[in-house]
Amino acid sequence: MSHSFHVHSHQQHLKWSSTISPIHTVPSGSIVSFDLRDGGNNQITPQSASSPSSALSSFDLTQADPAMGPVYVSGAEPGDVLKVEFLELTPADYGWTAILPGFGLLSDEFPEPQLKLWDLSNLSASSSSPRKATFKKGIEVPIKPFLGVVGVAPPPTMGPLSTIPPYPMVGGNMDCRTATKVGCTLYLPVNVPGALFSCGDGHAAQGDGEVCGTAIETPVKATVRLTVEKAHVRATKGYRLNCPHYTTPEPSREEVESEVQERAKGEYAALGIHENIREASRMAVRGVIDWLVAERGLTREEAYMLTSVCAGLTMAEVVDMPNYAISCSIPLSIFTDSN
Amino acid sequence: MSHSFHVHSHQQHLKWSSTISPIHTVPSGSIVSFDLRDGGNNQITPQSASSPSSALSSFDLTQADPAMGPVYVSGAEPGDVLKVEFLELTPADYGWTAILPGFGLLSDEFPEPQLKLWDLSNLSASSSSPRKATFKKGIEVPIKPFLGVVGVAPPPTMGPLSTIPPYPMVGGNMDCRTATKVGCTLYLPVNVPGALFSCGDGHAAQGDGEVCGTAIETPVKATVRLTVEKAHVRATKGYRLNCPHYTTPEPSREEVESEVQERAKGEYAALGIHENIREASRMAVRGVIDWLVAERGLTREEAYMLTSVCAGLTMAEVVDMPNYAISCSIPLSIFTDSN
Repeated sequence: MSHSFHVHSHQQHLKWSSTISPIHTVPSGSIVSFDLRDGGNNQITPQSASSPSSALSSFDLTQADPAMGPVYVSGAEPGDVLKVEFLELTPADYGWTAILPGFGLLSDEFPEPQLKLWDLSNLSASSSSPRKATFKKGIEVPIKPFLGVVGVAPPPTMGPLSTIPPYPMVGGNMDCRTATKVGCTLYLPVNVPGALFSCGDGHAAQGDGEVCGTAIETPVKATVRLTVEKAHVRATKGYRLNCPHYTTPEPSREEVESEVQERAKGEYAALGIHENIREASRMAVRGVIDWLVAERGLTREEAYMLTSVCAGLTMAEVVDMPNYAISCSIPLSIFTDSN
Repeated sequence: MSHSFHVHSHQQHLKWSSTISPIHTVPSGSIVSFDLRDGGNNQITPQSASSPSSALSSFDLTQADPAMGPVYVSGAEPGDVLKVEFLELTPADYGWTAILPGFGLLSDEFPEPQLKLWDLSNLSASSSSPRKATFKKGIEVPIKPFLGVVGVAPPPTMGPLSTIPPYPMVGGNMDCRTATKVGCTLYLPVNVPGALFSCGDGHAAQGDGEVCGTAIETPVKATVRLTVEKAHVRATKGYRLNCPHYTTPEPSREEVESEVQERAKGEYAALGIHENIREASRMAVRGVIDWLVAERGLTREEAYMLTSVCAGLTMAEVVDMPNYAISCSIPLSIFTDSN
């Protein structure tokens, strides 16, 4: 019933548009595999470690966040919903995190570029226990792969749109770690015949918010199932999708154990409070960075990058006006030294 | 070494101010117990069920969010930090959730008042398995008590300040469910001699965001330990608190089991995407409400209140400008019917 189709890494686009010709036309229910370039379009590689500053100074932001595709799903019509099931995500054996000037929640406070390369080569060996990658001696970050970019073409009246921001009717660069991991089902609005599905921007791990602007960026081999859900299914129940919806899977025993281990030492957190939600978030992130620098001996740049890959921004309250409270919390289990 | 002190429910204030006379003066390290009125100053009781509309129409918002105290902690000076350890929180045998006109993230869409009373009387009986309260037939919400209001007096140059919003140098109505549960340690800036600590606004459960403006509001008996941390402790490490910081506890086996059960069926979520963070949050909450109404047969008001007590707002990304992505997710384990 379902056929296999493959999208290669060079079959990419940097704009969302209804005018891009599809790579494949596939029946609803098809399984499609993708060889995904990373969010930096593979401009950073393990070889960048030998000269990080030149790798970053030559980094071309106009090539960032490529989406591989698009795939035309037969039978999808505007008003329908495209159901995307994430079946398999395999990161490459390396990843990178960077501070890119002008990019990130605290970009005004971090004007200098910075690059951290991650060795992910020994992840597959230990699939039983929580998989971790080394940030630096004594700091191990849990690996939780997902896709930053997952989307469909906008209506013909919109676009072409940059692939860097997300959009409610496209999805796109949502960077939502809970929506696109293996086992998740994502529901996207269909705006054009065939939906024109694309994806990219693999992340080996990311904190909620992706505060420095990058996660553990890595090329990923992805396999998804694409199914058309006709408009009437929700319409007869009286609602439609105005933005991406998703379900997360029943966690496996292994995932539960990982979570338990990750939370075993509790968390350190700061609560930003401000009448502007963004400023409240910045205050919270700054609080955690201050603590990481003072108590864990990191540089501010290291602390910012570490926060981006494993600390989370949660909205504590959004109703006690005029001030919002946003927490930034980091799991203490990442610190493997005894102190 | 540590003495016990008690603050009664009538010993309350509705403003944060350095000029309020303390109830007790206690040594650093003291254990203090509080008999806390709820966030509505006990205006709603189980008897309100007989006439919810009159209970809500006579509800006086100027009496909301009382803080019980203050307690003067000897040795605390401006620039120091007050360390607050949460030792015990016991909710009353009832709670309430309300839609109060003009209050809440979607206040413009929910102009009508609504009241839900909760029976919490059988919680203590089953302390081993996850404690739950019934929202309606087939929907059980996990109970996770914490305090909405925990704070200290502002500097003499500020205030008096309403207890309804939180403030970075006060704490106050943070409504942060992860910061003030049993086992947490909260660190608050000290702005005046003695810190002048107060607390209130017990919640039996709340989702991240408290989107309808109320949680499961309940009078709580609370016990905390108050300890002064002198300014030099952090100053010599090169930082100071500009907002509340906190640590969460190593979870108990029981807590882990509760979490596992809560996550056992995965989550349903919507991802709001917008250039305004508040609008992105509203879009996400609306998405979950739409789904609850269409797929679970709730009224919109029920869906809004249920979201407020057990769905969470997380910031997926805050860096892919110009658009922010905020997720609202609700655990599917609250639905106990087989379908």
